[in-house]
Amino acid sequence: MTFDAAAAMKNSDIIIGYKTYLELIPEFLEGKEVVSSQMMKEVDRGREALNLAEEGKTVSLVSGGDPGIYAMAGLVLELAQKADCKCKIEIIPGLAAINSCAARLGAPLMHDFAAVSLSDLLTPRELIYKRLDAVAGADFVVALYNPRSKKRTEQIVKAREIFLKYRSPDNVVGIVTNATRDNETIILTTLDKMLEEEIGMQSTVIIGNSQTYRWGDLLVTPRGYSEKYEM
Amino acid sequence: MTFDAAAAMKNSDIIIGYKTYLELIPEFLEGKEVVSSQMMKEVDRGREALNLAEEGKTVSLVSGGDPGIYAMAGLVLELAQKADCKCKIEIIPGLAAINSCAARLGAPLMHDFAAVSLSDLLTPRELIYKRLDAVAGADFVVALYNPRSKKRTEQIVKAREIFLKYRSPDNVVGIVTNATRDNETIILTTLDKMLEEEIGMQSTVIIGNSQTYRWGDLLVTPRGYSEKYEM
Repeated sequence: MTFDAAAAMKNSDIIIGYKTYLELIPEFLEGKEVVSSQMMKEVDRGREALNLAEEGKTVSLVSGGDPGIYAMAGLVLELAQKADCKCKIEIIPGLAAINSCAARLGAPLMHDFAAVSLSDLLTPRELIYKRLDAVAGADFVVALYNPRSKKRTEQIVKAREIFLKYRSPDNVVGIVTNATRDNETIILTTLDKMLEEEIGMQSTVIIGNSQTYRWGDLLVTPRGYSEKYEM
Repeated sequence: MTFDAAAAMKNSDIIIGYKTYLELIPEFLEGKEVVSSQMMKEVDRGREALNLAEEGKTVSLVSGGDPGIYAMAGLVLELAQKADCKCKIEIIPGLAAINSCAARLGAPLMHDFAAVSLSDLLTPRELIYKRLDAVAGADFVVALYNPRSKKRTEQIVKAREIFLKYRSPDNVVGIVTNATRDNETIILTTLDKMLEEEIGMQSTVIIGNSQTYRWGDLLVTPRGYSEKYEM
């Protein structure tokens, strides 16, 4: 949580959010009108926030992670555009999975990286695989979002295969599940063995580049491909 | 600034950081021993932090942005490993340029994205170009870090050429300089025209994917390549 996000909620008349997220921040809900939704879909939530803002209310729409990274910011802007909303919209950045999971793993994102969502709900699967192939071959550190769910089981298997075309089986992999929550788990493994580990909807998988190494319980991607700086 | 970062500084005996960054947070320095450095290089700063921690002090090493994204976290872990430090090291994530610049531009990072640094100080230039080619061709949203400096002028020209191999000249581009500072500037442009704009060491350039569009002063990358969700 940032100071800016806290200030925005403090200055709001109404706080809207997914019930599970709002339960994490009871101290920010006191004295506010709260529109908590378990079942309301994100499109409805975004539209409700815009409607209330158009009525002149100051509304905070709470998102997990960073609203600007695979999250609510884009949907709200798309809805606002379609409804021709005139209300002022401010996106307040937060810590995305890529920030918090990297920190829990050590320092994997010291060099060029990519984020790819394995969900094919809104993206053709061929495009997902094309992207994985591109970043695997160009030695990016890669964060896989939405790596596996009950229904989505094929993509992570295929992703591993794609990486093994270019990378060593020993290429290090970190899996962070429920980052920063009480039930957080952190696993360090390799491309070879990653599928033996528990990967679920709350997991982010970070595949190191060819230079990333393990130091104790941490992953480190060195800054330099050549060692131009003296240590 | 996050609550966790503030708490870490509050619980520290010593705050170490680059002078320019520490000047932004005077309220966190009160009552602390401050090791502020204008000239001390980052390697020296990291080593000093580790030395003090090994002496039993609690030390905050302040980094701009997110220490885990192209920043100090990896260097500190590399130094700690080489010196065989036993002190406890915690990485506290923050808002990287990719988070804050995206927020200032609207919602460009709603779909798969990559970050590529154009600095060839520690990376062979051929690898930088290979990576740009890979992510340009696979339709990633791409954030260019360190896009241009007085000495580093060729890479941004070449980067644009690489993108134009795969993308339309109208592909939208956002340039954020000095994000969230008083002298912040935000420019929306296109691949075609981007080199006409001021791009410097404090700039981050975000190149949209083929679907990213401009809505007024904002960039929006739609979530779906197919419109499976009803709006």
